[in-house]
Amino acid sequence: MQLGMIGLGKMGGNMAARLRDKGHDVVGFDFDPDLRDVGSVAELVERLEAPRTVWLMVPSGGPTRSSVRELAELLEPGDLVIEGGNSHYVDDREHADTLKERGVEYLDAGVSGGVWGRENGYGIMVGGSAEGVERARPVFDALTPDNGGGFVHAGGVGAGHFVKMVHNGIEYGMMQAFAEGYELMAASDVVDDVPGTLASWREGTVVRSWLLDLLVRALDEDPELERLRGYAQDSGEGRWTVQAAVDHAVPAPVMTAALYARFASRQEDSPAMKVVAALRNQFGGHAVAQADE
Amino acid sequence: MQLGMIGLGKMGGNMAARLRDKGHDVVGFDFDPDLRDVGSVAELVERLEAPRTVWLMVPSGGPTRSSVRELAELLEPGDLVIEGGNSHYVDDREHADTLKERGVEYLDAGVSGGVWGRENGYGIMVGGSAEGVERARPVFDALTPDNGGGFVHAGGVGAGHFVKMVHNGIEYGMMQAFAEGYELMAASDVVDDVPGTLASWREGTVVRSWLLDLLVRALDEDPELERLRGYAQDSGEGRWTVQAAVDHAVPAPVMTAALYARFASRQEDSPAMKVVAALRNQFGGHAVAQADE
Amino acid sequence: MQLGMIGLGKMGGNMAARLRDKGHDVVGFDFDPDLRDVGSVAELVERLEAPRTVWLMVPSGGPTRSSVRELAELLEPGDLVIEGGNSHYVDDREHADTLKERGVEYLDAGVSGGVWGRENGYGIMVGGSAEGVERARPVFDALTPDNGGGFVHAGGVGAGHFVKMVHNGIEYGMMQAFAEGYELMAASDVVDDVPGTLASWREGTVVRSWLLDLLVRALDEDPELERLRGYAQDSGEGRWTVQAAVDHAVPAPVMTAALYARFASRQEDSPAMKVVAALRNQFGGHAVAQADE
Amino acid sequence: MQLGMIGLGKMGGNMAARLRDKGHDVVGFDFDPDLRDVGSVAELVERLEAPRTVWLMVPSGGPTRSSVRELAELLEPGDLVIEGGNSHYVDDREHADTLKERGVEYLDAGVSGGVWGRENGYGIMVGGSAEGVERARPVFDALTPDNGGGFVHAGGVGAGHFVKMVHNGIEYGMMQAFAEGYELMAASDVVDDVPGTLASWREGTVVRSWLLDLLVRALDEDPELERLRGYAQDSGEGRWTVQAAVDHAVPAPVMTAALYARFASRQEDSPAMKVVAALRNQFGGHAVAQADE
Repeated sequence: MQLGMIGLGKMGGNMAARLRDKGHDVVGFDFDPDLRDVGSVAELVERLEAPRTVWLMVPSGGPTRSSVRELAELLEPGDLVIEGGNSHYVDDREHADTLKERGVEYLDAGVSGGVWGRENGYGIMVGGSAEGVERARPVFDALTPDNGGGFVHAGGVGAGHFVKMVHNGIEYGMMQAFAEGYELMAASDVVDDVPGTLASWREGTVVRSWLLDLLVRALDEDPELERLRGYAQDSGEGRWTVQAAVDHAVPAPVMTAALYARFASRQEDSPAMKVVAALRNQFGGHAVAQADE
Repeated sequence: MQLGMIGLGKMGGNMAARLRDKGHDVVGFDFDPDLRDVGSVAELVERLEAPRTVWLMVPSGGPTRSSVRELAELLEPGDLVIEGGNSHYVDDREHADTLKERGVEYLDAGVSGGVWGRENGYGIMVGGSAEGVERARPVFDALTPDNGGGFVHAGGVGAGHFVKMVHNGIEYGMMQAFAEGYELMAASDVVDDVPGTLASWREGTVVRSWLLDLLVRALDEDPELERLRGYAQDSGEGRWTVQAAVDHAVPAPVMTAALYARFASRQEDSPAMKVVAALRNQFGGHAVAQADE
Repeated sequence: MQLGMIGLGKMGGNMAARLRDKGHDVVGFDFDPDLRDVGSVAELVERLEAPRTVWLMVPSGGPTRSSVRELAELLEPGDLVIEGGNSHYVDDREHADTLKERGVEYLDAGVSGGVWGRENGYGIMVGGSAEGVERARPVFDALTPDNGGGFVHAGGVGAGHFVKMVHNGIEYGMMQAFAEGYELMAASDVVDDVPGTLASWREGTVVRSWLLDLLVRALDEDPELERLRGYAQDSGEGRWTVQAAVDHAVPAPVMTAALYARFASRQEDSPAMKVVAALRNQFGGHAVAQADE
Repeated sequence: MQLGMIGLGKMGGNMAARLRDKGHDVVGFDFDPDLRDVGSVAELVERLEAPRTVWLMVPSGGPTRSSVRELAELLEPGDLVIEGGNSHYVDDREHADTLKERGVEYLDAGVSGGVWGRENGYGIMVGGSAEGVERARPVFDALTPDNGGGFVHAGGVGAGHFVKMVHNGIEYGMMQAFAEGYELMAASDVVDDVPGTLASWREGTVVRSWLLDLLVRALDEDPELERLRGYAQDSGEGRWTVQAAVDHAVPAPVMTAALYARFASRQEDSPAMKVVAALRNQFGGHAVAQADE
């Protein structure tokens, strides 16, 4: 089918390529002139036959909100917008309302799979109406893995990004679990072959998983991870997961610990631990590390 | 090759069966007369041709220690004992020393795979000398998955159980990550199809893993987990992982949070939270739940 | 000075009483006819001489928002509103803007001290302009402890509730620290006298604190805390603290753990731990506790 | 009364001074010739009249074990040893057994109060027999605060160090709670006066405590804690508390989080976070921080 795609970066570009490989007609727009097929969103809308389907793949927050508003101006009743970026699930309701006033349908789609998705297919989680989902079914079929699976219509508007958010929270927890296990094995003088141990776990064990496969791959390239610093950004979805857990009174210690470990990894020095050092110094006369040491 | 196996319970019995399927000659002993081939460990030792290989698969702690001591009495120089149970890695050194005095070689083998191992093969992690590992190679080959992988010689004595312990700590963290994500989705009124969402994640996503496959399987049988209570034992290895992390000054918040969630799941009431309730009552006159409510 | 107080519940009522004890003229309104001096907010505003000072002490969220809007209708330029309830610091800005349109000044005041405040004085943390703070100084002086201290002008609008929120987050952490320590001592068969130990800590130790005093008091009344269930509500401020920490990328594991312990204390059964039980059952054939046991 | 004291460092020296101030006759030994009254433990034993009381105040582990063994050789039936250092509570039983063979009584005494104890008095928690405690009562009375309190006979051998260990675990949790709260206030652009806020909390609030007093004192000297690095040692007792919690299946998330924050504060780079960075790089092509940046 024909599809407009706004945002042709790492994710959007790969998805457009996979859709074209599967025979779909993708008209793409990006701010980068080297990546786009049309010079503006207006031109993209003109190029699509009604009823149109437009897939948004731009950064969440302001850029997505602006794009939704621009599309609300340009699209016609009966058109469909799929927000495939990382919008917060609460924002989805606002986007849907904005478009609904113009008679435009809205789906939110969480997309997992990273740079591997172009070849392996993506996991896609969708929120919105059953009708909307059916209309976009050919697109979802093309994006998900060839052998089936990787798709869910999780609920109404917002459900797709909600479960994608939770997926990422789980991902944070799993990554941190492997990370702690790695550090403990590396710290022990009992274990001689940490990369070999992880490699062996890919078969027969309880922890076998795609993340383990990736970790083994990373260690093949850099067996002691010497080329990296222990520094990790967070994408926003980990934060939202913790905040949603707090909103729903759900204890989420593992997902939260994983998030906090990332926060700490980005600090040059910890103000909190300065307080601990100051207190130890006050009551115990404990030696403290001076800032100029 | 010929192998004695002491302990023919759920794990040991399945392993003996897999070894026999692969053509090995297993002489088994268990306290349960219905399971065993010989009436005593002494008889087992007699039945094996020297140099013997004996695989221990009994509960860790006292039972394993007793078995090691009994074997030290009965075996001869050149024999080999493989401790395949869940010994603490520190105990392995003691076991090895006990047997070394008699000229008996010792390997420690961590075994993962649960009830699925008989068919799929087990993940096996071994500590000890390279010579010992080579002697037992046919046994390891038979137990690990048919397509290869699932085996590591992780280091000297204790290394096998150390990495198996860490494996279980990681497993705890991964399970808890899925558990928290499940609870958050179930708590949200945005998500209509939690089992379907998890099922979709098996393809294309970052969290795809054997544990996810098992969770989907469990939800197929009981979509709202109504037949279970939220109650989880811990096997000892989770505790040892946390204690090892503390010993090595390795921050392990995720593995620890997973362990504590299990502790809490087994409490009828929380003494700690009684203190919190008492304090709230003291300073705020907050309503508290009386024990007889 | 003269002061209107809206909300005469446990906190507001005690504060009004303390202010009257100190010679201030308090005109009070509450929905409960038994508590109030005037029959409506309009009547309260009428009874006060301009420029008026009105202290709001109603539940945060909707009730506070409604009161602010009602006051914006009724008050005159030059009047002052002090929001002494538990508003979220972000809401304070909205309240201040609403009132500013009418030329009414706004201060936010976090109040600590619970039911002890009437006698001991309250800790008060204020956000807003220096002029506003000066105008209300006599009220703050009367509410804070007689020997001085207990007052801070923490910053602009919202700062008072922000630091009160953080205060409560710290309070959660401290309470949970004592709670865990209590539980560990009670669980040990080494310690014969847990209440006596806590009582001894009130002098000479590093942990001496008002919360410890209260815990000792609670144990005097109920040495084994048999009359309570381990069940703790959270007031909202603990949640906001964690969410603010996440917003500011500040690792807050202790405050968060304390909050999650409260969440867990209120669950009949844990959906997350059902998942853990289900997974253990799947891979290990581990015995699980059935829902009907 | 007459007392031998072995170990005259920061803690032991201050305690000896306080005991002398109160009229006790202290004979002190230390490896440092500048601090000691006698040249050897043997000479110390000789100088004391039977039945002797010897207070041990040396580092825990090896040094304490050696001193106990030396005293077992030198002391006579009816003598009394008080281990006032930071022994692990499990070691106390071994020490008591070693001395019991010689008819020497053993008490374990946990001591809190840091460098402030000489003036303010110490908090002292004792394990052992009631007879032993009565014999040493004058010493305990002199060491604890002048106004009473600060003393508990917590149980049999080991109970003193057990509760001191828990005290320190609680202390870790409280310090971390203040530390996190400080960091959050400092990170916010809403709060202008963080030191003033903390200072105000000393009166009227729920968090008032000695640790808060010390924090205010530290901020008086260095308002932005610029002279310190966020680096904190742990004394061993925090680790033991977590390990005891794990042994007793007591969830201790707050005390553990505080310990892990200290571990992390001492790492130049985090191996765990390198794994997280490596995984993000693998699946998402996320930018990572190279080691040479």
